[in-house]
Amino acid sequence: MRTYKWYFEDFVIGSSISLGSHQFTEEEIIEFAKKFDPQPFHIDREAAKDSIFGGIIASGWHTCSVMMRLLVDGMVSDAASLGSPGVDEVRWIKPVRAGDTISVTLTVTDAKASASKSDRGVIWNDWRGTNQHGELVATIKSMGMFLRRPT
Amino acid sequence: MRTYKWYFEDFVIGSSISLGSHQFTEEEIIEFAKKFDPQPFHIDREAAKDSIFGGIIASGWHTCSVMMRLLVDGMVSDAASLGSPGVDEVRWIKPVRAGDTISVTLTVTDAKASASKSDRGVIWNDWRGTNQHGELVATIKSMGMFLRRPT
Repeated sequence: MRTYKWYFEDFVIGSSISLGSHQFTEEEIIEFAKKFDPQPFHIDREAAKDSIFGGIIASGWHTCSVMMRLLVDGMVSDAASLGSPGVDEVRWIKPVRAGDTISVTLTVTDAKASASKSDRGVIWNDWRGTNQHGELVATIKSMGMFLRRPT
Repeated sequence: MRTYKWYFEDFVIGSSISLGSHQFTEEEIIEFAKKFDPQPFHIDREAAKDSIFGGIIASGWHTCSVMMRLLVDGMVSDAASLGSPGVDEVRWIKPVRAGDTISVTLTVTDAKASASKSDRGVIWNDWRGTNQHGELVATIKSMGMFLRRPT
């Protein structure tokens, strides 16, 4: 049976995990937005210049998706994860632009063993995405269900 | 100057807007997840069969992104939108599988004119995604800023 680095018990409230970073290109910002969020300031360089953002910015859903990829590579791929029922309080605080490098840190904010199923528990995390200038650009409060470490 | 169908005043609390539907293919579920959420039950048909989900399911972020696309096509593309500071309470209630057709409805839950900027206001919406069996699969509570209708 496969074993994992991250079980329910391994998430210590107050601890943080660095999840690495991703540099956004204009090409991928436009590609994502053409599929999922084709607003002018996400897909059209000229229209974006005249918008309130002054240039192309990434769709907020693109930023979330990239943060998820960093979470998978940095933790979930080696975790006894049972998926997530959802997230709370996604905030798009500053625009993400082409060339920006976003680093993500996860902080464990709460942990509750399941009362009904003794093999699992729920972990609450705060994700913080910061750009190359140290500015906070996006935050997510997530819930995830994980198996307890086998005894 | 461009005029729009949807200004702040056009969102009536309690009213609903049908945003159309999208049928998910296995190809696009895997394509999205390989980029942003490469967990086995999103990208690997065999591994997914053995997972708690019993088959490939869409990434929750993919479901949100498709709901956003329906929102853009059905409303935002003809709205005096100033973007969004974020969303609250995203819930992935049931798996979305290849072949599922998800229909999205928006309900206006609150509206507040800006106290500091007389040309705009914030609208709160509940998005509900329902599959072809009438089952609720995902919900999002969003905030959006819109210009007031020019007088």
